[in-house]
Amino acid sequence: MTATDEPTALHVFDADTAVDPQDDGAFAAELSDRWDRLGGGPLGGYSLAVALRALEALAGFPDLLSASACFLRPAEHGAASIDTEQIRLGRSVETAEARFVQGGTERLRVLANFADLASAAGPSLVLGGPPALPDPDDCLDPYDALRPSGTVADRVEYRVTRAPGWLRGEPTGDPSVECWVRFADRGEVDLIGLAFLVDAVAPAVLDLGAASSSTIELTLHCRARPAPGWLALRATTRFVTGGYHEEDVEVWDSTGVLVAQSRQLARLVGTPQFGSPRR
Amino acid sequence: MTATDEPTALHVFDADTAVDPQDDGAFAAELSDRWDRLGGGPLGGYSLAVALRALEALAGFPDLLSASACFLRPAEHGAASIDTEQIRLGRSVETAEARFVQGGTERLRVLANFADLASAAGPSLVLGGPPALPDPDDCLDPYDALRPSGTVADRVEYRVTRAPGWLRGEPTGDPSVECWVRFADRGEVDLIGLAFLVDAVAPAVLDLGAASSSTIELTLHCRARPAPGWLALRATTRFVTGGYHEEDVEVWDSTGVLVAQSRQLARLVGTPQFGSPRR
Repeated sequence: MTATDEPTALHVFDADTAVDPQDDGAFAAELSDRWDRLGGGPLGGYSLAVALRALEALAGFPDLLSASACFLRPAEHGAASIDTEQIRLGRSVETAEARFVQGGTERLRVLANFADLASAAGPSLVLGGPPALPDPDDCLDPYDALRPSGTVADRVEYRVTRAPGWLRGEPTGDPSVECWVRFADRGEVDLIGLAFLVDAVAPAVLDLGAASSSTIELTLHCRARPAPGWLALRATTRFVTGGYHEEDVEVWDSTGVLVAQSRQLARLVGTPQFGSPRR
Repeated sequence: MTATDEPTALHVFDADTAVDPQDDGAFAAELSDRWDRLGGGPLGGYSLAVALRALEALAGFPDLLSASACFLRPAEHGAASIDTEQIRLGRSVETAEARFVQGGTERLRVLANFADLASAAGPSLVLGGPPALPDPDDCLDPYDALRPSGTVADRVEYRVTRAPGWLRGEPTGDPSVECWVRFADRGEVDLIGLAFLVDAVAPAVLDLGAASSSTIELTLHCRARPAPGWLALRATTRFVTGGYHEEDVEVWDSTGVLVAQSRQLARLVGTPQFGSPRR
């Protein structure tokens, strides 16, 4: 949280999620190779962000309020088209849908709501707080010793209080993560940036010994536009049943405001080391 | 949890969510006046269940795995049509979408996944348990003194350990609910029944003094087919920001198995009594 957190002129994420309007509510986009998951190929949250940029371009309200995405097939680098549909423009909420298509095949379907968060006039009550993390300058870069190059870890900075167990080959058994995140180029994180970032943290189940986690569905709720600076993120999995599991994420901005919640439904990939009996 | 919990021949919920196939993947349905919310009109979870029945009828897998619904406009009693689209039939997951239409106007859009939960082969780890409720026979009917007749409270039985504060005009300030639920006719609750029941419990924010809560988006994740008998439900709101709030629900079956999680994004209706400053 220093003055050097100011965004620079270079916003790689914004450039890489830009969409170009075509006819009939369609948009063209180009997926770069700068936002890959471990294992290769664009991160799900990246293709989601691109699809949301198309909906944002048409939306009657400034702020992404919610997005529910079904991941149908992995996205690929290169050209994509996004077909959009405005479902309803109401007085305070707009609902719209996008289909993210590459090579004639739909990869992602997303149902989203937009609103004006700054005009939310109701009361507030916050029964929870951000993770109790030290100042980012007093935290560790989890990838200091072993950086997964060629992945989003080149473009997103993380700060944690202890190196992740799974990265040392010693899963802790505790499926929870607390960390600071920001774009490495200090680009400002808007609400669509949050849709990417909630998917850009290593899955909490890696510390159960899982090799990976494959997302079936992701729903994001946005609460406020983030203030500039580091974001504090808490990711938790509480229920793994037959390999299916949720991952809940809260994102708090540098002023301590809850800016988003997300929940994914995902499946374990690989053969985890744990095997407590199903209840 | 007694032998008398066996379902009878009469399953009002199943009859009232029946759908009739038409051409082109469309279905006809008839919304009864038996599943109304407080204030009148069909509960959102009821129209959602009807839409899901249409998707279930076409699904390549037996079990609802997830559903994400955007509530566009209130549903009404009477005729409805549900247009369906199979988006992708994969090896283990099918994704499909439904549009719930009445009077030529779309009321609800839902994106759903189906799978075979019984074949889920991965490991399990459950870091949480059902609410610590006494046996249903040792609990109270919250509506014993004042039953909101003409609502779902006529068709759903609830059991709690203490009468709800909001119902006595004395909100407790604690936005959490733990209760037993079942259909009053002892009809078996299937996964689509869960999509209804997670919306059939009075919003946790009523105990903050809110008059009501209006759902924008609801996402349900199903984990297992419920065993017969009472279901234990935990509903919690932790973050109210400018009137927007989540409601998280867990549903546990009579054998202690987590059968579903849901999260709604909703807005407060009316003028609540609380007003802590927004953080």
